[in-house]
Order: sequence, then structure tokens, then C-alpha cells
Amino acid sequence: MSTSDAKLLGLWASPFTTRVQMALKLKSVEFEFIQENLQNKSELLLKTNPVHKKVPVFIHDDKPICESLIIIQYIEDTWISGPSILPTDPYDRAIARFWAAYIDDKWFPLLKELGAAHGDEARTSIMEKIFEGLALLEEAFDKCSKGKGFFGEENVGYLDIALGCYLGWVKATEIMTGVKWLDETKTPGLVGWAERLCSDNAVKDVLPEAQKLVEHYKMSTPKEKSATA
Amino acid sequence: MSTSDAKLLGLWASPFTTRVQMALKLKSVEFEFIQENLQNKSELLLKTNPVHKKVPVFIHDDKPICESLIIIQYIEDTWISGPSILPTDPYDRAIARFWAAYIDDKWFPLLKELGAAHGDEARTSIMEKIFEGLALLEEAFDKCSKGKGFFGEENVGYLDIALGCYLGWVKATEIMTGVKWLDETKTPGLVGWAERLCSDNAVKDVLPEAQKLVEHYKMSTPKEKSATA
Repeated sequence: MSTSDAKLLGLWASPFTTRVQMALKLKSVEFEFIQENLQNKSELLLKTNPVHKKVPVFIHDDKPICESLIIIQYIEDTWISGPSILPTDPYDRAIARFWAAYIDDKWFPLLKELGAAHGDEARTSIMEKIFEGLALLEEAFDKCSKGKGFFGEENVGYLDIALGCYLGWVKATEIMTGVKWLDETKTPGLVGWAERLCSDNAVKDVLPEAQKLVEHYKMSTPKEKSATA
Repeated sequence: MSTSDAKLLGLWASPFTTRVQMALKLKSVEFEFIQENLQNKSELLLKTNPVHKKVPVFIHDDKPICESLIIIQYIEDTWISGPSILPTDPYDRAIARFWAAYIDDKWFPLLKELGAAHGDEARTSIMEKIFEGLALLEEAFDKCSKGKGFFGEENVGYLDIALGCYLGWVKATEIMTGVKWLDETKTPGLVGWAERLCSDNAVKDVLPEAQKLVEHYKMSTPKEKSATA
């Protein structure tokens, strides 16, 4: 699909950027990727996202769209001839949106908190919450996938993207903490899902490598760690 | 429209509940309103929103949907013969979603923070941020309304509901603080908009009275103050 007027302003290590890359790849939309430097934000970023000053920003026909889930919805609404990202049924769509919001607002922030936590007690408490969240997401996977391979049933969909974009960071925090978040006993559905997703064409080339993320995390400033949305 | 299988589990003082009531009224959907008691949450609430345990929950054909903006999207997707709530153009839709998220995630939390702030310095700093947010929303109104009366142009739409649901609380905090948030000099667009919105049929009967909200706020516990979403 010819879309020379599509640009993505992002950061390779930002899961929110990965999310948009996945959606664009699913829809076979060609775009220019512009790597942002969060230590010295570009004029383009400040101009296109003056409210939050965060990546990703998707610029289509010179019009900027911010916030990753809103960008994905825009991509879905704009490239309607490509495969559907959201479920067709309004209720299934609402459920997908519910879990995507849960992941962004409740679950992923715990992984960030863990990085900043001091003391064994604080870390243990956060880790328990992360596992509780994964148990909920395992249940959600069972319901949404309807016995098939993805949250979007046969195909990678909205919730696969919403959660899948974090897989690089999930693995990176496993390396850094020594804790295995996904395992065959507690979250067998998600273990299989993660394997399938990481070999999917829309995902395998855009998901950052865990080891590179570990190095990036160790080198980045606290300000950078929170500068994506 | 006959929808005897539609129930809304809510709280009269919750702006998120008001939001859903507005959307249902816009679409002429009949529903049963079930007043929730947040000091003694019902079995129905705990069963239908086990993750967040918050109102509103919209129950349609025995299927629960949580989170007010997700419910509104569900209402839009389900009652398609009624007037559109979201803009038709994908970019306008993305912009409406962007500002709705800004209002919920950044702006309204400031009004709550103000209630909990101690000391003049803290209060002044929060008030400045509230005014800065209103200046952004005034600009957004100018752009979205395209010279017409509402964010949704000629008609009450998504962003009118997303921001309008807070008008009762905006007025209630004006009574409690003595500060006028909206005025003809700084936010003339929003002043006219608020007047028009409050006389709209979908809004005037469901927006709680400011004085009643003041009394409710003074009597409610800190836990209750944060128990809606």
C-alpha cells in the first residue's frame, strides 16, 4: 500500500512505538520511521505532540496523531481494506479495549515500579501484583482467544498488539530480576501465545531484543524511562 | 427504543456515570438505573466489575461492560441507528479520543488533587495547572467545534459528553473554592459551550446539581471519592 505520507516518530525501545509498528505492519502500511532522541527532543516532536511531548506520534498527510492506542484505532479506521485489528462484535471490541486499558493503566506500570523499588519487601509486594495481573490476563486470553492462538482468535489483533508490545520488556525484566513471569504451570495459555506471537510476521521484526533493552535500560535516565506513551 | 435488557449500575454523583447516562439519552436507549452504594458495594457490582470494583457498569443482555469511555464506544457501536456520538472522520475521531483521554488522565485529576491539597502554595500550583488545562481545552473547542456550538459541531458528541459530565463538579468546586474556572475573558468558547450543553435535552436532566454535589462531597469518605471510573 503506498503511503509515502505516513511517518512514525518513535523510539526503538518504547513498547508504545512497537505497538504502532505492529499495527502498521499488520495493515501493510509503508511508513518512514523517525528515531527520536528523548534527551534532546526534536522540534518535530514538540510541534506534533505539544501536550505530552512523548513518542509515538504518527503523522499522516501532515496530521499528527498521538497516544498509541488512539493511533492504532486511527490506523484501523483509515486502512479499512487491510485485516481487521479490532474484533467485529461490539461486545468483543469493548472487552479488548477493557483489557488494553488494564494493561496500560494497571499492569505495565507495575513492571516500571519494580525497576524503581527499594527493599525486598517492596519488591515482593510489586511482584505479587504482577503475577496477580498475569493470572487475570491468562483468564482474559482463555476467553478472548476462544480456543484459538491469539487474543484476536485466528489472527493477531488489538489485544495481541496491546500486550504483545511489552514482550521485549517482559523478557528484559526477567533477565534483570531472575524472575520468570510467564510459565507453563501458572500461565500456559500466555506462554504458547507469546511464542506464537514472536514468530508472527507482523511482530518478529519490530519487537526489540530483550538483551538490547537491558543495556538500554541500564544506560537511560529516569526521565527517559517515563517519556513514552 | 425498547431495551429492557439494559441496566446501568452507577452513582448519581459520579461524572463517569453521568457520562453513560448522557450517551444513552442521546441514543434514546431505555435502561434501568441501579443506584450503587459504594460504602457497601453490591454483589452485582463485585460480580460485573471484579477487576476494578467501580461504577459505572453497563449491563446489556446480561453482559457487563466497564469503564465509561469504553461503554460509550459500545453504545455507539450497538445502537447504530441513533445519532452518531463520535465524529465520522477518522482523524476527527482520533482528536476527540485524544482530548477525552487528556481530560480523564490529566485534567480532571487536578480538580481531585485540589480537594486534597494542603497549604496555599500547593493549592496555587494545582490551580495554575487547572487553568493551563482549560486554556488547552478552549483551543481544542475552537478547533473541534469548527465555529459551531459543540465539540461535536452542530450536535452533542463524544467530547461534549467526555468533558460535559464534569460540569456539575466544575461548578461544585467553584462553590467550594470561590474560584471561577470558566470566564468570558480566558475561555469564552467554553463558557458559551457549557451554557448550551446544560440546556441540551440529553444533558439537563442527568447532570447533577452543583449544590447537591457540594453536600455529597462534604459527607463522603476519601475511599468513596476515588471509587468511580
